[in-house]
Amino acid sequence: MANGFDPAKGARLEPKIAELVARRDRALGPSYRLFYDEPVALASASGLELVGIDGRTYLDAYNNVPVIGHSHPAVTAAVSTQLQTLNTHTRYITESILDYSERLLGHFPAPLERVTYTCTGSEAIDLAVRIARHRTGRRGLIISEHAYHGTTVTAAGMSPSLGPNNPLGTDVVTIPSVDTAATPADQVGAKLAADVRAAAAQLEESGAGVAAVVLDSILSSDGVQTHPLGFLQPAEAVVRELGALWIADEVQPGFGRTGTWWGFERHGIVPDLVVLGKPMGNGMPIAAVVGTLDAQASFGAEVRYFNTFAGNPVSIAAATAVLDVIEGDELVSHAAAMGTRLLDGLQELVQSHESAQHARGAGLFAALDLGTPTSPDPELAARVVNGMRQSGVLISASGPAAASLKIRPPLPISSAQCDQIVETLDAVLMEVERAR
Amino acid sequence: MANGFDPAKGARLEPKIAELVARRDRALGPSYRLFYDEPVALASASGLELVGIDGRTYLDAYNNVPVIGHSHPAVTAAVSTQLQTLNTHTRYITESILDYSERLLGHFPAPLERVTYTCTGSEAIDLAVRIARHRTGRRGLIISEHAYHGTTVTAAGMSPSLGPNNPLGTDVVTIPSVDTAATPADQVGAKLAADVRAAAAQLEESGAGVAAVVLDSILSSDGVQTHPLGFLQPAEAVVRELGALWIADEVQPGFGRTGTWWGFERHGIVPDLVVLGKPMGNGMPIAAVVGTLDAQASFGAEVRYFNTFAGNPVSIAAATAVLDVIEGDELVSHAAAMGTRLLDGLQELVQSHESAQHARGAGLFAALDLGTPTSPDPELAARVVNGMRQSGVLISASGPAAASLKIRPPLPISSAQCDQIVETLDAVLMEVERAR
Repeated sequence: MANGFDPAKGARLEPKIAELVARRDRALGPSYRLFYDEPVALASASGLELVGIDGRTYLDAYNNVPVIGHSHPAVTAAVSTQLQTLNTHTRYITESILDYSERLLGHFPAPLERVTYTCTGSEAIDLAVRIARHRTGRRGLIISEHAYHGTTVTAAGMSPSLGPNNPLGTDVVTIPSVDTAATPADQVGAKLAADVRAAAAQLEESGAGVAAVVLDSILSSDGVQTHPLGFLQPAEAVVRELGALWIADEVQPGFGRTGTWWGFERHGIVPDLVVLGKPMGNGMPIAAVVGTLDAQASFGAEVRYFNTFAGNPVSIAAATAVLDVIEGDELVSHAAAMGTRLLDGLQELVQSHESAQHARGAGLFAALDLGTPTSPDPELAARVVNGMRQSGVLISASGPAAASLKIRPPLPISSAQCDQIVETLDAVLMEVERAR
Repeated sequence: MANGFDPAKGARLEPKIAELVARRDRALGPSYRLFYDEPVALASASGLELVGIDGRTYLDAYNNVPVIGHSHPAVTAAVSTQLQTLNTHTRYITESILDYSERLLGHFPAPLERVTYTCTGSEAIDLAVRIARHRTGRRGLIISEHAYHGTTVTAAGMSPSLGPNNPLGTDVVTIPSVDTAATPADQVGAKLAADVRAAAAQLEESGAGVAAVVLDSILSSDGVQTHPLGFLQPAEAVVRELGALWIADEVQPGFGRTGTWWGFERHGIVPDLVVLGKPMGNGMPIAAVVGTLDAQASFGAEVRYFNTFAGNPVSIAAATAVLDVIEGDELVSHAAAMGTRLLDGLQELVQSHESAQHARGAGLFAALDLGTPTSPDPELAARVVNGMRQSGVLISASGPAAASLKIRPPLPISSAQCDQIVETLDAVLMEVERAR
């Protein structure tokens, strides 16, 4: 995986870190992985600042779960109060889930009018697939070739970015990663639509048919593909023609990250099902499927769905606090403004650094490709990511070649912190280029 | 479903309840269901007492999530403190997950030595299936014919109790529900083993092979099957012979409910993978797979598993508080003692009520079959469940015929509350029998 700690590299770890890594190896399942050549051990966090067990501070320019900032007091207060009062499930009536649902749905275009809660984005994408297959009576799913949609059997089966040992699902067909850096802007949409059409033909020939096209609205794991605006529209038209559903995975772009409430809005499309996750509760496990009634009605009538912890009053309290802060602090427009500042800085790095090829972004989700014009350089990206970590700024890498830096800070970032990311990156790039 | 609210029955609801039900219908996905002919709207809860929005109190004799009691101050304190400090994911090192994991593993027999966290029991069973298929290179799963294992595509595909519109997974084969009321005690184990063997033959013939036998260790949705002790052993021997894995679903029986830490212990077997869920965080979303290193090693080496919210410091704080209370208040032995008192009371009802056929239980998980000796009576069970609700005691029904009352209170129940359950049930049974 991009930016994974590899014990085989034999990095010399601080004794305390080495001890904790050894304890992890002895107690946790062998599927766990750590970030960075020298893993980071954390003691506390606040706002955009993470504090290591050695007292060292880091600027968090990577985590999209604490969307309103780490350890936000509004979440703590809401959760603590609710935990003292009531925490049970949705087979009893509670009012706060209705208050929240009505507010949440108010942020969606009209046909998206019902919400079903889950605990994680993986559960939500998995539920969206159940609904889409039930609605269409077909099984086929079209996904991107470097997609990541989650960890259940079905979600992992739609996540080729997990690598060759992770089997794709039956009736899952991939389309080539959108590559906006390499494709003329006026051809991005048409190419994607043609790719969807070809995949659909394959699924129709196999007899599976197309239940849904499932795309992360900012194609996060395909390298963060943001422009031109509207490039999803021609593919949406194909989906309508096929009578299939569009499932928008908004786990990463959702809740204001892109400078709009939802990533699909930037493209002027209206999905049938929208999958929400990570930032929804600022770290409290809550996720959801928002969809049209048409898409959900038959599944709802014929199949019950009960998720014990999902939509419980405590998770709802956290999600309500998050909505309060995003709205009250106007974090969506703030993300747009800070994103512009960040992207301007990255564009300057493309001008000033030979190895920086292409910068792109939407709101506070940005990517910078490293390498030469013809050859992405994952090894360089890994050195930059680790150099940034050593310089106190946490980012990661992404994309089919793992050569795109991924920058995705909590939304309440300041101008100075945007500048700190760019300046640190400038210095690290210089150092890494000099060392070659 | 057993004990579902059916609007078509046209029950007259209090105006406030009717309004909330209407708001649910307008905002929530159509898959949501409520309990009881007259749904319960809750305002608060403490210990075993639930308080409705009308101020009415109910004894909770059903919910196994708040295992240490509703709104427990130890959970509130631990979660609040941690939320103010740090809440991030497992790709950074934090120490509390290691402290907790080491303690949790201390409650398992030695070969069960690694834990992987998820957020829900559904995610955990789904992960266990991924691990088992990777380990064995086979796809087949053997489950019980009225099993419930969760809500993902794969977990729902192993949950025939969800009804005929819920498709079972490919390579999933069912065995008949264990029926300990109808089977001579000395034949229960042999019959189960023979059924597993027959299902295995079917999967071997199809080419899928047997990856795992997956059983809830107390067969909750198959009517709660508790005795004779050891009846899982002959089936375990078949699994060993097949080179398959035993996945114990401990989401319902786990964490002391049965008067032992784990349901599988009662039968003297050692599973390869154990799935934990509901009670683990007393309502905070945390679940896990505990397993042998042998079962997990190849999956762990070749496939990474990352679940963003799983094992975060806040969930771990909740789970640690739960462990503190279970251990400190000796709730496992308390559950055994109270369970005996409850079961003695239910046995008396079998003596004194014509419609009460068979009582059984392990710790605080009890069932009472209603009907005649030859014919289970789900309609009667529904009337008793609703009569209990009207009398202020919440229980539900279960089993292939939905005719087994399911009684499953939080562990800190008092003797007086056990007696209240039995006395209320006595009165309700009398009333319902008289009304026939």
